[in-house]
Amino acid sequence: MSNPIDQNKLEKLAEVAVQVGLGLEEGQDLIMTAPIEAAPLVRLITEQAYKAGAGLVTTLYSDPEATLARYKYGHDLSFDRATGWLFDGIGEAFDNNAARLAISAENPMLLANEDPEKVGRANKAMSVASTPMRKRIVDFNINWNIVSYPSADWAKQVFPHDSEEIAVKKLAEAIFAASRVDLDDPVGAWAEHNKTLAAKSKWLNGHNFAALHFSGPGTDLTIGLADNHEWMGGAAKAKNGIVCNPNIPTEEVFTTPHALKVEGYVRSSKPLSHQGTLIDNIEARFEGGRIVEARADKGEEVLLKMLDTDEGARALGEVALVPHSSPISQSGTLFYNTMFDENAACHIAQGQCYSKCFKDSENLSENQVRANGGNSSQIHVDWMIGAAETDIDGVTRSGEAVPVFRNGEWA
Amino acid sequence: MSNPIDQNKLEKLAEVAVQVGLGLEEGQDLIMTAPIEAAPLVRLITEQAYKAGAGLVTTLYSDPEATLARYKYGHDLSFDRATGWLFDGIGEAFDNNAARLAISAENPMLLANEDPEKVGRANKAMSVASTPMRKRIVDFNINWNIVSYPSADWAKQVFPHDSEEIAVKKLAEAIFAASRVDLDDPVGAWAEHNKTLAAKSKWLNGHNFAALHFSGPGTDLTIGLADNHEWMGGAAKAKNGIVCNPNIPTEEVFTTPHALKVEGYVRSSKPLSHQGTLIDNIEARFEGGRIVEARADKGEEVLLKMLDTDEGARALGEVALVPHSSPISQSGTLFYNTMFDENAACHIAQGQCYSKCFKDSENLSENQVRANGGNSSQIHVDWMIGAAETDIDGVTRSGEAVPVFRNGEWA
Repeated sequence: MSNPIDQNKLEKLAEVAVQVGLGLEEGQDLIMTAPIEAAPLVRLITEQAYKAGAGLVTTLYSDPEATLARYKYGHDLSFDRATGWLFDGIGEAFDNNAARLAISAENPMLLANEDPEKVGRANKAMSVASTPMRKRIVDFNINWNIVSYPSADWAKQVFPHDSEEIAVKKLAEAIFAASRVDLDDPVGAWAEHNKTLAAKSKWLNGHNFAALHFSGPGTDLTIGLADNHEWMGGAAKAKNGIVCNPNIPTEEVFTTPHALKVEGYVRSSKPLSHQGTLIDNIEARFEGGRIVEARADKGEEVLLKMLDTDEGARALGEVALVPHSSPISQSGTLFYNTMFDENAACHIAQGQCYSKCFKDSENLSENQVRANGGNSSQIHVDWMIGAAETDIDGVTRSGEAVPVFRNGEWA
Repeated sequence: MSNPIDQNKLEKLAEVAVQVGLGLEEGQDLIMTAPIEAAPLVRLITEQAYKAGAGLVTTLYSDPEATLARYKYGHDLSFDRATGWLFDGIGEAFDNNAARLAISAENPMLLANEDPEKVGRANKAMSVASTPMRKRIVDFNINWNIVSYPSADWAKQVFPHDSEEIAVKKLAEAIFAASRVDLDDPVGAWAEHNKTLAAKSKWLNGHNFAALHFSGPGTDLTIGLADNHEWMGGAAKAKNGIVCNPNIPTEEVFTTPHALKVEGYVRSSKPLSHQGTLIDNIEARFEGGRIVEARADKGEEVLLKMLDTDEGARALGEVALVPHSSPISQSGTLFYNTMFDENAACHIAQGQCYSKCFKDSENLSENQVRANGGNSSQIHVDWMIGAAETDIDGVTRSGEAVPVFRNGEWA
């Protein structure tokens, strides 16, 4: 079997990850996380990082087979354990200015047949243990980036009617196109794309809406925005002064909702792949900023466990706008991977807010973020609510409605 | 190409690693380190560990290709960097009673063509950063084990005239034989072997020699033994109360020399593979416990850098007795891997002593270890000095000589 992944484009993806995604600076250490199958991309990124002057590149590999062995043979007490010592170590490295790159390649159905009670416990233990580390990421202390790799198990979920070879080839091409590495000058294309997203953010920031009102099938939701919120999209400057593109691909502009000011009901528009299980057709009702009722056709138990992670898990940490005409959406492919599916539809996220999404965020204390309405939680889970029929109005401070989206597109 | 590694024996090796090597207890977490090529053994050990009741099994993979990329493209400042944050995290896990398993499979010549100045700097940075973690291992705070896996790059060094498939098959069989997993009841065979090693240790402890005198080709060396030294071999009880077999294979009994009382000269009897370079035909002269002159036919620069790591690097931390008739020695194979070659010949180690090799070691402070003559250093590097011609006398407190080895065998 010939290699179904175009090596030339894979090299370009490594270049884009280091130059555009991370903006890695001379002397910076890099910590990478990746499933073991993604080793070919890890090696190319390692080379690119050293060429860019990296100090030390360290990869922490995960292995889905080890995860399955845990569920198959593991002692009951295993499911409340997590590697806090490792997350704390990574946090320490971030405090010494190490950059972070994650390669996403998970089989979205890895844990579909495992006991949801155990999956929920394991997820919660990991969320709790990794909170201090994750906080440094969501607070943008350092430059970070996520890119994707077409693993066979993921590809077979996305293209179930194809042979493994064809499925991997199709997923690889979809990743390359969405990541703009099928173009002659990917770095230049990203500079252009970042300009477009910056212009949308600027328009929204100019309006400084008090709330957004979403309407569509199964959805009538008013999302109050945090005081002093700021819209962002594409390139962002981390607190260490380095401009990075955290998500590759990215099509969204996003900001911080007010943790106490979300009212109404909403239906998910795409399945959510959450740590190896699929949660589909979520319906939720918000009151005073929090989900007070939730159900799902599939994965309801994992959803409810996730919402019970902590006090902040039922409130929103992010609202993001993506036109229905986004290239990923137009591909018509459901990736079962948040990195892709969230860039095909407007979405919201339960849990921790990005403290970066505030005016003058560098000088904002945690208490001020909270006073502005920013939510805090051990989780940050995006789920898709936008569709072709979605209308969004911006609600001004004086209560007027300004069209933002009509039929899924920028108005 | 069919898989040249017998999967049935590989499974037995995983069983021996967990049951004999670690003695893993219910609820213990396990931290494994392994090169990425050893993933098949990692997966089998992960299963065995979960079956034995492990809490959480975490594997930290290394990748020789990433190491080479560092030497090929890395910035000069890279070679003084080390992952202190990761070593510190592992140390924290040991403090919470996690067990440690290392899979050894390195290509002994990986760095043979790299700049020895950079290799020396990188080794030193790693030694310094990992000292607190390694101290918990050498102090036997927790149960630990090293086993080996027949990687292709290692096999091709050991059997350079064979095809890769044959070389891997031969190395696999050699590892399986030395690790006693080619027998019907490996766990029982290990219990027998541990009895033999315990009897040798008991005999040596009964004599409580003041010193050992080694003579042989190029060697006339008197190694004073530490006050209150204790000989050990095979199974050992760690401070967490768990009996483990740290090395698989193991044929040695060993104890702590006196850091100030080694006099004479010594020639190495086998090449030393040290972190990707080969050091061959070492000649060293000791005065007052320390190497005052050293040379080598190959790898002299790396040897001298290693000896300059710190104050304690020139003194001895271990002396170990292995008969020339040991099965690994009789195989006639030079493995270029300390785990094997040190179990084919008497050897000494530069650097840190095992604080466990003292009477009443559990209640001994660091100062008491030092007062007894125990050496401390950021390195612990074994090198082989025993051969077919080696004679060893035990020197009693009153100065009499008791034959210990004659012509490489127990006297």
